[in-house]
Amino acid sequence: MMSAMHTPTLYRQWADHYAQAIHSGALPPGERMPSLRDLMARHAVSLSTAVQLCRTLEREGLLEARPRAGYFVRPRRPLASLQEPQPSAPDVAQYVGIHQRVSEVLALSQRYPAKVNLSGSCGAPSLYPGAALRLATQRALRAQPDIFSQPLAMAGCAPFLQALAQHALDAQMTLSPDELVVTHGCTEALTLALRAVAQPGEVIAVESPTYYGLLQILESLGLQALEIPASPHTGLSLEALEMAARQCPGLKAVAVTPNLHNPLGCVMPDAHKRQLLRWCQRHDIALIEDNTYTPLYDAGPPLAAIKAWDDSGQVIVCSSLHKILAPGLRLGWIAGGKWHERIAMLKYSQSRPNELLPQLAMTDYLSSGALPRHLSTLKRTLRHQREQMADAVDRLFPAGCRFSLPPGGMSIWVELPGELSSLAVFHAALQQGIRISPGVMFSNAGRVDHCLRLNAGLPYTREVDRAMHTLAQVIEHTLNQAPAGRGKATHA
Amino acid sequence: MMSAMHTPTLYRQWADHYAQAIHSGALPPGERMPSLRDLMARHAVSLSTAVQLCRTLEREGLLEARPRAGYFVRPRRPLASLQEPQPSAPDVAQYVGIHQRVSEVLALSQRYPAKVNLSGSCGAPSLYPGAALRLATQRALRAQPDIFSQPLAMAGCAPFLQALAQHALDAQMTLSPDELVVTHGCTEALTLALRAVAQPGEVIAVESPTYYGLLQILESLGLQALEIPASPHTGLSLEALEMAARQCPGLKAVAVTPNLHNPLGCVMPDAHKRQLLRWCQRHDIALIEDNTYTPLYDAGPPLAAIKAWDDSGQVIVCSSLHKILAPGLRLGWIAGGKWHERIAMLKYSQSRPNELLPQLAMTDYLSSGALPRHLSTLKRTLRHQREQMADAVDRLFPAGCRFSLPPGGMSIWVELPGELSSLAVFHAALQQGIRISPGVMFSNAGRVDHCLRLNAGLPYTREVDRAMHTLAQVIEHTLNQAPAGRGKATHA
Ligand SMILES: Cc1ncc(COP(=O)(O)O)c(C=O)c1O
Ligand SMILES: Cc1ncc(COP(=O)(O)O)c(C=O)c1O
Repeated sequence: MMSAMHTPTLYRQWADHYAQAIHSGALPPGERMPSLRDLMARHAVSLSTAVQLCRTLEREGLLEARPRAGYFVRPRRPLASLQEPQPSAPDVAQYVGIHQRVSEVLALSQRYPAKVNLSGSCGAPSLYPGAALRLATQRALRAQPDIFSQPLAMAGCAPFLQALAQHALDAQMTLSPDELVVTHGCTEALTLALRAVAQPGEVIAVESPTYYGLLQILESLGLQALEIPASPHTGLSLEALEMAARQCPGLKAVAVTPNLHNPLGCVMPDAHKRQLLRWCQRHDIALIEDNTYTPLYDAGPPLAAIKAWDDSGQVIVCSSLHKILAPGLRLGWIAGGKWHERIAMLKYSQSRPNELLPQLAMTDYLSSGALPRHLSTLKRTLRHQREQMADAVDRLFPAGCRFSLPPGGMSIWVELPGELSSLAVFHAALQQGIRISPGVMFSNAGRVDHCLRLNAGLPYTREVDRAMHTLAQVIEHTLNQAPAGRGKATHA
Repeated sequence: MMSAMHTPTLYRQWADHYAQAIHSGALPPGERMPSLRDLMARHAVSLSTAVQLCRTLEREGLLEARPRAGYFVRPRRPLASLQEPQPSAPDVAQYVGIHQRVSEVLALSQRYPAKVNLSGSCGAPSLYPGAALRLATQRALRAQPDIFSQPLAMAGCAPFLQALAQHALDAQMTLSPDELVVTHGCTEALTLALRAVAQPGEVIAVESPTYYGLLQILESLGLQALEIPASPHTGLSLEALEMAARQCPGLKAVAVTPNLHNPLGCVMPDAHKRQLLRWCQRHDIALIEDNTYTPLYDAGPPLAAIKAWDDSGQVIVCSSLHKILAPGLRLGWIAGGKWHERIAMLKYSQSRPNELLPQLAMTDYLSSGALPRHLSTLKRTLRHQREQMADAVDRLFPAGCRFSLPPGGMSIWVELPGELSSLAVFHAALQQGIRISPGVMFSNAGRVDHCLRLNAGLPYTREVDRAMHTLAQVIEHTLNQAPAGRGKATHA
């Protein structure tokens, strides 16, 4: 960046640097500029250079000064020639208390159209039994002509609860239909579990990194996330949990994804599952278990849920059919253990029971016996796609990148070399029409800011391959821009 | 589950697993066991283990073999002496913090089957365009074959948002589709509105009495309800609001149902609507407006929403198609005004976007132009039914009962003589198979404990008439049992 070919003045050099960051979107509209003190320290310049740098960018229309708050990247004005209305960056003040960083990344992802979306955690539509579910829906419509006109019973849809209880047996959970509540995806299940066991201000232990949706829920409910390091091989560190709990006596719950963790893809060994359960029982701490990906394990016999060993109602299971059967349906469920009644009432109070039609259609599908065959095809396809994507990372990404190859699911987790900012990569990739999930979303503690998650749920087409090439270049480029002493040099 | 303590044989372990599933009801009587092949694949066991597992359970009387069809869970033999299991009362400790009294009434209502349910606030199924919506659903299924397999876009379903914006014009609200968010009913809309504007511990002004669902939401979010008396003729008392606000400076929002209030049935005059809006604007207090019943007004030209006058984004509109079009669908919406972005993100974080199918079907229905005709029939029918029910109250209930005859909707609000406890009436009526909504649900302040709400949404059949006779007797009886100094004597 800082070529010395014709040595412009120092403030001009740095002004150009920031102008480029702004144009690239790395410093998005609305973003706060580093303070004058920060600029001085970062670039080893004098106060007057820092001031001149900011004033220059202000004159050029890139920054605006806000009284007592400093300089901010100016919201973009629509250019006359521009076709699509230029999407403005979200106003982050809107997201205070809903996890600002995660919300901002999500909102930006929404506003910039992506040609190739590698940010999700979901299979391609072709991997799901859409036609069978459509037929099942038509059958349900014929069987229950009154379906849209009957008010919904608080107790839910008995045949679907029954089908879910049966499905849960695959993960060795023996649940009675009347201890289940149907929810809007695992997301609502997690929301309800947390609302049931904790009050605002209280502390919940989570894996670090963890699913960003959980961080959003926690913060928006006013709960404190206590991040416990998770191993990419065995998940949550039980020693770290015990240590943390000793320092934080009011712990209300531990929320984990023991099987095919998002984003790491790891599986907690059965011995750890039992140990964690006993520990939670002993300390009367709720164990919130997210089983979203459990059926997608393909490296051996089916995985057991922690709930399989729960003899006291300490485990709240949250799950969903989203990832395995129907990304376009919001069918989740929760088994609340000893908090069941409370959770059922919170569900009623928050959104009322789920609609019947999708539940009846899914019951029809599940009882047709088609699930095992579908799952085995799905798992085979996902495995192949994971291998292809991991292979591309291996071939294309700069030296020093490391990646996971998990035993199921669709996520590839990539560690970038050095302390490269995944947020910079995210912004630069977005400019190229490629969407990824930057590591910063998965932890408050900054432990994985240099990582990113890729979705191997899509068939590895030419277009995806091209996107992987572009992404590799973006990473390379971002590496080269990283200040000396960080980035590739130290790791190549 | 698979503890290694005394390592039973493999088939015995799995036999125990299935025995437990059968006893818990997860595998119900008559259900087909997984095939031998399935068992082998699922549990990674040999054929002979799978066979032994099934034979063992057969011997133990849990399975039966059917020729060429496999093993089935054995049908339970009816027990000669057993009646219906006696429903146990809910454990109220479960509901601490979710409005214990409302939760208890709801839970009891669930457990005792009611022959005649007058507790709802909803029309009979025959009043709604179920067939048209079913056809619209089938069209949507044909038009979007991928509908269940595509992940849902965060931005929602554009044509439905468009249709809602157009529908909102009927209440004189000019809304752009991109300031709307689709929710799971008005219930989720209210939840989101409150989460967006207030933190736990903060205060929200509500009408007294008010819709019990709102009280549940408030308490479960840790918000304080400040009850402002509402007139049965003009709704919220603005003087009382101003006085209360002076004593309670941190007021965050006022939540009102200005049109066809639940339970009172009253309508706030337009002058009050404007005055309330200006007051909220002046004090920067959010105005949460519940418009659920607005289209059901039948005593003059359509009512305007408060939002119609909102020039600053101060009003958050919460509404739903539940009461006017489809009690079996959960289609609600929210227009968040200046809190829109925040509400959209909270919705994403709490439950993710709504499914597409009902939105597409409803878009189809709304754009067919059938709504005005449907509404006029619905309103005519509801008016007739309200008159019949009010007439029955007048004829049958003890002297001293007073009742509302609102200008739309389906609720009849009855004041019982003296200080008669509506909860006592509720319990006694439930014993007779009749469900009502007792006044205690609609206020924390005890102002309406002697009132009850009846649903005039059902056709006034012989059965309903008989129930009204029984209810009258129950009230009479409860009155006679009331302690001296309360009850009928003071009012006869
Ligand atoms: C671990 C985990 N839990 C929950 C969810 C959300 O599930 P649903 O779509 O069923 O709400 C996801 C989706 O990415 C996830 O990865
Ligand atoms: C005033 C009011 N608001 C909201 C609701 C709930 O609406 P929905 O069923 O759309 O969640 C009701 C239902 O009784 C109501 O009376």
